[in-house]
Amino acid sequence: MATTRTLDLVIFGGTGDLAMRKLLPALYHLHCDGLLSPQARIIGTARDALDDEGYRSLARQQAERFLGRDFRGEDWQTFAARLAYAPVDALQGDSFAALAEQLAARPDGQRVFYLSTAPGLFSAISRHLEAAGLIGSDSRVVLEKPLGHDLASSRQINDEVGQYFGEEQIYRIDHYLGKEPVQNLLALRFGNALFEPLWRREWVRDVQITVAEQVGVEARGDFYDRVGAMRDMVQNHLLQLLCIVAMEPPASINPDAVRDEKLKILRALRPFTAGDVATRSVRGQYRAGASGGQPVAGYLEESGIAADSRTETFVALKAEINTWRWAGVPFFLRTGKRMQDKVAEIVINFRSVPHSIFGIPASPLHANRMVIRMQPEETVDLHLLAKQPGDVMQLQPVRLNLDFAEAFRSRRLEAYERLLMDVMRGNLTLFVRRDEQEAAWRWVEPILAGWDATGERPKPYTAGTWGPAASSALLSRDGLSWHEEI
Amino acid sequence: MATTRTLDLVIFGGTGDLAMRKLLPALYHLHCDGLLSPQARIIGTARDALDDEGYRSLARQQAERFLGRDFRGEDWQTFAARLAYAPVDALQGDSFAALAEQLAARPDGQRVFYLSTAPGLFSAISRHLEAAGLIGSDSRVVLEKPLGHDLASSRQINDEVGQYFGEEQIYRIDHYLGKEPVQNLLALRFGNALFEPLWRREWVRDVQITVAEQVGVEARGDFYDRVGAMRDMVQNHLLQLLCIVAMEPPASINPDAVRDEKLKILRALRPFTAGDVATRSVRGQYRAGASGGQPVAGYLEESGIAADSRTETFVALKAEINTWRWAGVPFFLRTGKRMQDKVAEIVINFRSVPHSIFGIPASPLHANRMVIRMQPEETVDLHLLAKQPGDVMQLQPVRLNLDFAEAFRSRRLEAYERLLMDVMRGNLTLFVRRDEQEAAWRWVEPILAGWDATGERPKPYTAGTWGPAASSALLSRDGLSWHEEI
Repeated sequence: MATTRTLDLVIFGGTGDLAMRKLLPALYHLHCDGLLSPQARIIGTARDALDDEGYRSLARQQAERFLGRDFRGEDWQTFAARLAYAPVDALQGDSFAALAEQLAARPDGQRVFYLSTAPGLFSAISRHLEAAGLIGSDSRVVLEKPLGHDLASSRQINDEVGQYFGEEQIYRIDHYLGKEPVQNLLALRFGNALFEPLWRREWVRDVQITVAEQVGVEARGDFYDRVGAMRDMVQNHLLQLLCIVAMEPPASINPDAVRDEKLKILRALRPFTAGDVATRSVRGQYRAGASGGQPVAGYLEESGIAADSRTETFVALKAEINTWRWAGVPFFLRTGKRMQDKVAEIVINFRSVPHSIFGIPASPLHANRMVIRMQPEETVDLHLLAKQPGDVMQLQPVRLNLDFAEAFRSRRLEAYERLLMDVMRGNLTLFVRRDEQEAAWRWVEPILAGWDATGERPKPYTAGTWGPAASSALLSRDGLSWHEEI
Repeated sequence: MATTRTLDLVIFGGTGDLAMRKLLPALYHLHCDGLLSPQARIIGTARDALDDEGYRSLARQQAERFLGRDFRGEDWQTFAARLAYAPVDALQGDSFAALAEQLAARPDGQRVFYLSTAPGLFSAISRHLEAAGLIGSDSRVVLEKPLGHDLASSRQINDEVGQYFGEEQIYRIDHYLGKEPVQNLLALRFGNALFEPLWRREWVRDVQITVAEQVGVEARGDFYDRVGAMRDMVQNHLLQLLCIVAMEPPASINPDAVRDEKLKILRALRPFTAGDVATRSVRGQYRAGASGGQPVAGYLEESGIAADSRTETFVALKAEINTWRWAGVPFFLRTGKRMQDKVAEIVINFRSVPHSIFGIPASPLHANRMVIRMQPEETVDLHLLAKQPGDVMQLQPVRLNLDFAEAFRSRRLEAYERLLMDVMRGNLTLFVRRDEQEAAWRWVEPILAGWDATGERPKPYTAGTWGPAASSALLSRDGLSWHEEI
């Protein structure tokens, strides 16, 4: 990036988990690849009483841990020269003085404020940044999830941040959108004439989006118990992935063209009635079981969890999109903790051939499908039938690699690297607009309310399984089953 | 093949070029792979005065040459035990006695008569076989091209052979149909739901079928000068390939279901008017030039060629199919001798994306295409655009292997192996039915007649090039160009 303008990237929550585990490693990689402007500086802020050197030394410690083999002392040396620190208490306006001093050195530079803190602090941080005169007309702010707990609280946060930053300055991050296979899906859908004609109800039987974690709530029990799988995963990540699969071709890849199309999908999601909550949603909570061969505790035994908690650790939904393209095609969404495997994938199941000419009956088992996988590896595969070489016409399933990792042989960017690049370049395409976020809440709220209204407990499932039996039943009622293949 | 019934495969022209170069090597391979019934015997016949041992020794000599590294003395030993010989003069009925004697040993066995002779002998051979009582109700006869010189002569041959063999006993061979990539095309089209919706005028811009040879007429000048590229290649091979690409899905892979669909295409080919001959056909004749870096003679200088010959050694045609599926989609056919490369391929050019959302203008250069290649290698490739991994949305052409040679890792059968297996199994699917052949002649004749009527000479082209300039012009009038990529 040849630019003469300076860049200050200020990370609030600069000593926190996300900063250490994802943001600094991503910035380090960009630095090593020459993708960071020479003038770019990274300023960590937090309540900790540290100076620049103290922060660098803390960051180095953590980087060695999280970068593993990628940590190279020499590269770190030049990277660390970009790091600075300013102690800030987000709730104390006068504590922003140290940060102001750091930034004063480059008054005309581009500023990016990355709010990797609890969302309750977003408003105060924005207000104090403004009061300290630190927000320029083209400053940018990056907001990490969770953005509120429901429509009302997300509106409040957006209103408050919106007093100091225009919508075009606000980068709401959803790191699933930065993943290479999701990008590939966009390229395949809209760069080729071949897929778009097939991408509709006539040829697609169902779509399945799974984000399954093997871990439990770990140290985040206290946080998680107030949130649950629907708010933590479905409202943001799963619905964003659904939008990428389902949206109409945008007029261009420009941010608002893409986000307008995503918004149309979110608004076209068929609302859940009380009856739908009973028949089209499943929530679960894990019980003691085994994970990776080790016995693990149930959710209610985890630390920080209320003894009678009804928080769901698993959600499965049958969504439908009320458009000409998708009417009648079920979009099954599933996410959970303590699942059997760590899998994040989108599966497009195409319909079977209408008639098999080869003697074997046409079967969904042999139907074509596209699998866009983000976890455990990043791949895009097309599953076809092909002729087995030989003297008879015998068909066999084959898997076609569509992500061409081998063809390109270059290092893949981690989602956060990609998204940080986009923030620095001012490209909002992969960030969530306020109206999208609110539309997602509007769709999710009646389901949450429906669950509350029943007074029922989440269905128990054994840790290390694919969730409650009701999750399979959700599909088997349509004669379908979850794609489970590692 | 576990069968207790004996099989006698009688090759007329048993000492000829095709028998030695293709048939015996194919049978040897089938033998080695355990695909030949233990009771199968191969009886060569020709005018040569040989006994069984003499034939085996001649066959061994030739096999060492044509099998190359695949020749293994031990395997040949067991294979040669299947070989026998009967001297036969096709025109002398009483000369069939020796063959009758050979066959008498296994009166109830299955008999296959492979007529690898000049078509002028087909009638006499059939008549004498019948007179000698050698044709059983389920005997089969295999006919090699050329099957006549025009509609009338092909009808005559078919009528004559048809007096002794029912249509269901007649296997008209077109070895292009036995090639693995052609089989794969059938499997891909009808085994997957994904391709069929795209396989039509809405999504296909044009289809190109090329069978280009590097060789000239070689020792066959005398034969070739009476035939030319249209009769030698277009009427049979190229039109058969066109049928496989264009046919509607048959109800089953059964012989008549498939051949009915091919016939429908042949009958739907838009007939050439006199005007079309001028604007939609190109014929050429090669002049001296270079092939493989060596200077080579022009067609008129080759031995056996009339000094003023107007025989075409190159044909390019713009065909159209008058059906709802294909109306307006040009099918370009091209074949020639002394071309720049040895290539046999079918190219399906899909339309460009209707609108590029990625900033780069949509261009036919980046349109998707499927390339089914039979020469120089056997491959099926799909050309797509994919995202280059990295921080920006950049698309690059990539080539996707659809024949899965690596996935299956088994030896590919040569076209003749596959087709001989089908003859022995009684599977007519890949053989040309009489009505197909006649429909092909019916389409080709007006073009031949149109050329004659003009009194013009074929357009000259330099040996070692892609034919006359008019061939490129045929496509450039539609804003297209031949797929030329090795």
